[in-house]
This record gives sequence, C-alpha cells and structure tokens, in this order.
Amino acid sequence: MSSAIDELEKKGKAAKAASRKLAHLPSEVKNKALIDIAESLVAREGEILDANRLDCDEARASGMDDAMLDRLMLNSTRIQAMAQDVRTVASLPDPVGEAFDTRVLPNGLRIERRRVPLGVIGAIYESRPNVTVDISSLCLKSGNAIILRGGKEALRSNSALARVTTEAAVAAGVPEGAVQFIESTERELVSRMLKMSANIDLIIPRGGEELVKFVTDNATMPVLASGVGICHTYVDSTADLDKAVAIAYNAKVQRPTVCNALDCLLVHSEVAERYLPMIAGEWAKAGVEMHCDERALKILSSFNPVPASDSDWGKEFLALIAAIKVVDSLDAALEHIERYGSGHSEAIITEDYTEAMRFLEDVDAACVYVNASTRFTDGGQFGLGAEVGISTAKFHARGPMGLRELTIYKWVIIGSGQVRP
Amino acid sequence: MSSAIDELEKKGKAAKAASRKLAHLPSEVKNKALIDIAESLVAREGEILDANRLDCDEARASGMDDAMLDRLMLNSTRIQAMAQDVRTVASLPDPVGEAFDTRVLPNGLRIERRRVPLGVIGAIYESRPNVTVDISSLCLKSGNAIILRGGKEALRSNSALARVTTEAAVAAGVPEGAVQFIESTERELVSRMLKMSANIDLIIPRGGEELVKFVTDNATMPVLASGVGICHTYVDSTADLDKAVAIAYNAKVQRPTVCNALDCLLVHSEVAERYLPMIAGEWAKAGVEMHCDERALKILSSFNPVPASDSDWGKEFLALIAAIKVVDSLDAALEHIERYGSGHSEAIITEDYTEAMRFLEDVDAACVYVNASTRFTDGGQFGLGAEVGISTAKFHARGPMGLRELTIYKWVIIGSGQVRP
Repeated sequence: MSSAIDELEKKGKAAKAASRKLAHLPSEVKNKALIDIAESLVAREGEILDANRLDCDEARASGMDDAMLDRLMLNSTRIQAMAQDVRTVASLPDPVGEAFDTRVLPNGLRIERRRVPLGVIGAIYESRPNVTVDISSLCLKSGNAIILRGGKEALRSNSALARVTTEAAVAAGVPEGAVQFIESTERELVSRMLKMSANIDLIIPRGGEELVKFVTDNATMPVLASGVGICHTYVDSTADLDKAVAIAYNAKVQRPTVCNALDCLLVHSEVAERYLPMIAGEWAKAGVEMHCDERALKILSSFNPVPASDSDWGKEFLALIAAIKVVDSLDAALEHIERYGSGHSEAIITEDYTEAMRFLEDVDAACVYVNASTRFTDGGQFGLGAEVGISTAKFHARGPMGLRELTIYKWVIIGSGQVRP
Repeated sequence: MSSAIDELEKKGKAAKAASRKLAHLPSEVKNKALIDIAESLVAREGEILDANRLDCDEARASGMDDAMLDRLMLNSTRIQAMAQDVRTVASLPDPVGEAFDTRVLPNGLRIERRRVPLGVIGAIYESRPNVTVDISSLCLKSGNAIILRGGKEALRSNSALARVTTEAAVAAGVPEGAVQFIESTERELVSRMLKMSANIDLIIPRGGEELVKFVTDNATMPVLASGVGICHTYVDSTADLDKAVAIAYNAKVQRPTVCNALDCLLVHSEVAERYLPMIAGEWAKAGVEMHCDERALKILSSFNPVPASDSDWGKEFLALIAAIKVVDSLDAALEHIERYGSGHSEAIITEDYTEAMRFLEDVDAACVYVNASTRFTDGGQFGLGAEVGISTAKFHARGPMGLRELTIYKWVIIGSGQVRP
C-alpha cells in the first residue's frame, strides 16, 4: 500500500513538472497531439478491445447488470466516436493566452488578464472508459496535466486507453508526465489524492452522486462537479399551448436518461384543463408514466395517471416518468422550483412579457429558459464546443463547462518604470 | 452552546431568505443604503467609540501588545475613513445584471451569461473592526447577504458597527436579515459555520495564516482567501538601473507591512557590482535591513549587510527587511521564484524584449510585472474600485478581487419554441 502511495506522490510531482511545460506549449503542437491520439485510438483498436474484453468478462462473471455492462463495453463504433470527439477538441479555439479586460491606467501602466491553465487536474471517475480519453483531450487542449483515476471494473480498458493516449501525445511533443494513469485500485488512493493540493490544482469527479459527494466533502483543492438536474417546465396561463406541447414533449422524451431532461411539469390552473390532455396524449404515445398531483389526476383520469407521492417532487427520474402539478400562479411555480429544483435548468412557457422577465430574473439556476426545451443545456448546444460537465455550483463556473472553465487568468502588468505614489 | 448553534442556523436561514430579495434589489436602493450607512457611522460615532473603548480596556488589561491594540482601536478619523470607503463602494458600478458572451445560435435561441450574486457570504475575521463595515458594504453592493463572525477581542466594536450598518441598511430598503452578526464568541461556531453549505455559498476568511488555513481545510463551501505575498523583483543584466533603483525602493519602502511589498531582490551577476550599491544606498537611508547571499554580502560589505539564512528565502517579511541574491541568469531567477514565491506578485526589470516576454509567460503568479513596482497589486490601483482581498489561489478569481469576484453568472436562454433535434 505505501508503495502505491509513493507512486501516486511521484505521479503528482511528475504531472506538476509537466504542467509547467504544457502551459507554454503552442496550440499547433497540442492540436497535432490530439489528432495523433485520435488516429492511434483507431489504429490500436485491437489492443484496446482486447483489454476491454477482459474487463467485460470479469464484470459479467461477477454479476454486473446489463445496463452497467453496456456502459463498460467498447466496440469499433464506440472507439471511432471517441476518436471523433478528440478531433472535435483539436478543432476548438485554444483558450490559453487569451487576453481580456485590457486597459491602460492613467499612469501609463498597461494591464490585462491573460488566460492560463490551472496546472494539474485530477479526474476520479467510474465505469465508462471513454472518460479516460475525453478528459485527457480536454485537459491537454487547455494546457493542463492530468492524473486519471478510473473505476476498478474498467481498469484494463482505461489503462489501455491511457497508454495509447500518452504514447501518441508524447510522440507529438507533449511533455512526458502530462497524462498520468493510476494503475492501483486501492480505495485509499482516492482519499490520498484529495489531499494532494500541492500537486493537484483541481479535482473533477465523474460518476454517481455518492462519488461526487465524497470528493466534494473531502477534497482540499477546488472541485468541478456536475450537478444533479431536477428540471421543471412551467406552462403559464398565457402559454402558446402548441409550443408548450412541443417543448415539454422534447424535454421529456428526446433523451430521458440525461440531467437536462424534464422531471416535473408545472401547469397554470387556467390552462390545465386544455393543456394537460394535449401533452398527456403525446407523452402516452411515447410511454411516459405520469405522476400527478390531485388536480392533474382528475383532468388526466383517462390516461392511467399515477398519484404522485411526496418523493416525486424534487426527484431526478432519468427515465420516461414525469411529475405533474397544477399551480395557481407564477408565484406558486417559483416557490415549487425554489423548493424542489437543483439549480440546473428551469423553463417557463409563456406569451406574457412581464412573467417571462420575472422568471428569468427570479429563478436561481444555472440555466433559465423562456419558450425553449431544457434539453439545450449542453456545452455543444451552447457553442462551447466540448463539455467538461454541467455545474450547479455557484463558484468559478456555472452551467455547461467548456475548455475556458479549465483555465484561470493571471494579471500581466507592463510598465516603463512606474512606482506607486 | 446548542442555543448558540440554533441561533446560528436561524441566522443562516434568514440570510438565505434575504439574499433572494437582495439579488433583485435595484442599484439605486443599494447605493442609497450605502450612503446612509456612511452617514450613520459618522452620526453614531459616540456609540461606536464607547463600545470600542470597552474592547480596548479589556484587551489592554489582558495584556494585548501595542501593535494589536492599535489595530483594534477606533477614533473619529478612522470612523470617517470607514464611512468614506463605504461611499466609494456606493460610487462603483453595480456588477449584478451585467450580460456577457451574448450570442444568437443558428436555431434562433438567444443566449447570454448574466451576472448574479453568489447568495450568502460568511466572513470570519480577526481584530480590525473596520472589516465589519468593509465586507458588509462590498456584499450589499454585489447583492449578497452576509453573516459576520468577528474576533472575540473586538466583539463590542463589531457588534456596534454591525448594528449601525444593519439599521441604516434596513431603513433604506435592504431586506431584513441581509446583514447578520454573530454575537456568541464560542469557538465551536466557526466549525459549524464551515459546514453550513446549504445556507452559506462562500466563506471569506480575513486574518492570520492560521485562521485562513483552518477555514480552507475545513470549509465545505468555496473559500475566497487572500494569500501570503512573497514577492520578488529581478533586476536583469540589461535593466535601466535608475528605474531599477526607483522600483525596488518603492516596492520595499513605500509600505513595507503589506503583502505586495518586495521581500527578495534578485540581481543578475553582470550588473550586481554596479546596481547593488545604488539600491543599498537608498535602502540604507530608509533603514532597510539587508539579508544577503554570499556574493551580495561581499559587494555590500560597507552597508552592514546581514548574512542571509536559509529561512530568508521564501519569507514574507512585512517589515523593512529585504533578502538579496545574485543570480547568473534569467533561468536562475525563474527557478528561485518558482521555488520560493507564493504566486502573488513578481517583477522583472529589464530592457530586453525577449527576457521581458519570457518572464511574463513563465512566472506562475497572480500578477507578473515588467518594469514596475509590485506595490501596484491592489484592487484600487487596478481600477476595480474596492478590493475584497488578493487571491493567490487558481480558481474563480486570482489577484485583486473586486465586486465582480463576489458574483457568478447564470445562463439566460430566450426562445420562441425551440426544441432539440
């Protein structure tokens, strides 16, 4: 065990040393490295799939369920998709070096903020092996070194992916040590990693709520975590009901297993009798299970609704299930959202200008929408290119996090002999 | 004890409730409140000074040293200075509501990031009572509620200042509960505060290194801390030596007790024989004690230099003391700064373009300077108006932190029925 910890400490120091060089690596070298990584992934597919097969066999033998197995499993198509994602990162603008807030002070000092990498990023993640490549490419592009700590069940797959990535990167001119993979699966190593603030500048946890909570509670360095998405769509009394049907349908059905999908539909009582059967008709065709409050239950009695239980409010379903509640005012909707929302994505459907503006102003969430589907909360959709995750925290970054969110700035001050009076 | 904790929890909830209203308070109401606070401080000077006298008497009786007593002590001039600082905050632009990165997506969605307050800020501070007013005014202006936890020795002074501040603010239309002061001095309350992440969004520690470390290690919410400043000025072989004298003199002497003052002078060996006597002559007149490495010791033998000990490198002196070292290259200077600097403010004095650019690029610090005094590292000097502190961390904010650094953004998405394909 102590040798595994020694090795972790060594990896931390090596990553820190590499990060100093990586911070100044020209974009063209980083982009070449990313393109070479993409090519290597495809060229060395056999090696990756062999490793993955061993992981999958072991997981199956130990009784892993089919959904988890599917997340673990790689194939040609998935490796090609991974490679394509790396190429996309290569094509994005480099955030490092960007100057902003540039100005000249009355004494002639020129000052600006200049974007720089954070340094070393630690990634702690579970199951899906693509995270290995995904996080590595985002870190490389943003000039950060990376220490990867994947899940035990994907150890061989992650190790193979990290090896292919590292070899291609170093061959293209990325400093040795910029991508570090932890081979030991000792649980203790995670706790130790969270205390290595001298050599790790930021931790990114990727996985279930339990993992994220453990990391957030125990890390001594900043944490960039994706938050739970408990998303509401409120259909106001003045809503264009056809739009409201299209939007609520899209928000629930287009991809129900993700954080920005609709969990709870709030409907103003003045339009509930007309609107609820419209959306329920569409949802029923798609197989959506509707958990209704008393008033919605009556209106939707012909759609086999389920009476909502207390635990349905504030629940992230990640499935074809929606909670439905009838409210008497925008205020009631706002109160419900404040109480049960997770600060992720919230929408109002309305034709009333004042209500729209009030919703945008009053709702305290990463993303607030008028007349659109919450499914748009996504780095790619927002034009950030790639996405590190979606933050529901209120520090450093909120909502979809792209490459820029993996950087910070330093102040650059250019003088000609100025002293402070 | 449990009643003090109950009260703390109550204050947390009240602050959270107030923060929701405060977030939408118009700038003119906040500015009026700030101006009224300034007036009240001056008008109620007697009440504040009476409370402060009791604190000072008790501190003196318990043997507090003169320097600490001076930090604790208030008088008319200091109260007027406090009031003036509050007026300055009133005159600054309101960061809340500012939109940035506005764009229209190909599907017609209008998206922007809109600046919003963080919510509730907890301040944990020691000694100087002016922090009570200072932090309160910055939080109010940036739309954040505040929970104040001052030092035991300044309890009566802080309490009086918080009372005057709160009463004036509420009378001007600030929601009740926006400024909360903790009267209990139980140490346990600090630990409890650091776990209240449900109702406190950010902690600002203000005080000695020990306090800052305790807060950083134990807080479950983000921490905005001012860092230690171990500041170097490197005089390169091509430096304009007159400028180098003026700058190093200013950086060390103009205000030696602050974090951006020079701690260590690095001088290129090619100019050390000429430059060191020039600066030492000026520093000697100002009473600067010079802790020299071997080579500098020889050159400055006529100036009563002190041989530097190992602990002089990487030390924040906060006094008229400077460490001096002769180096043979920019690389040696960069290595020294990387090893001993605290990532605060670092300067190079040079006429060489390439060396200047390399220093700016390579030094990993909040503020990097060419040909200017590190004393400029300050929110006021940088044009931020007021300053919350100077961060040496690499997350959310770096260097001088102004009102904007007490905010975050939310994404606002304005649609006309868009759904995700």
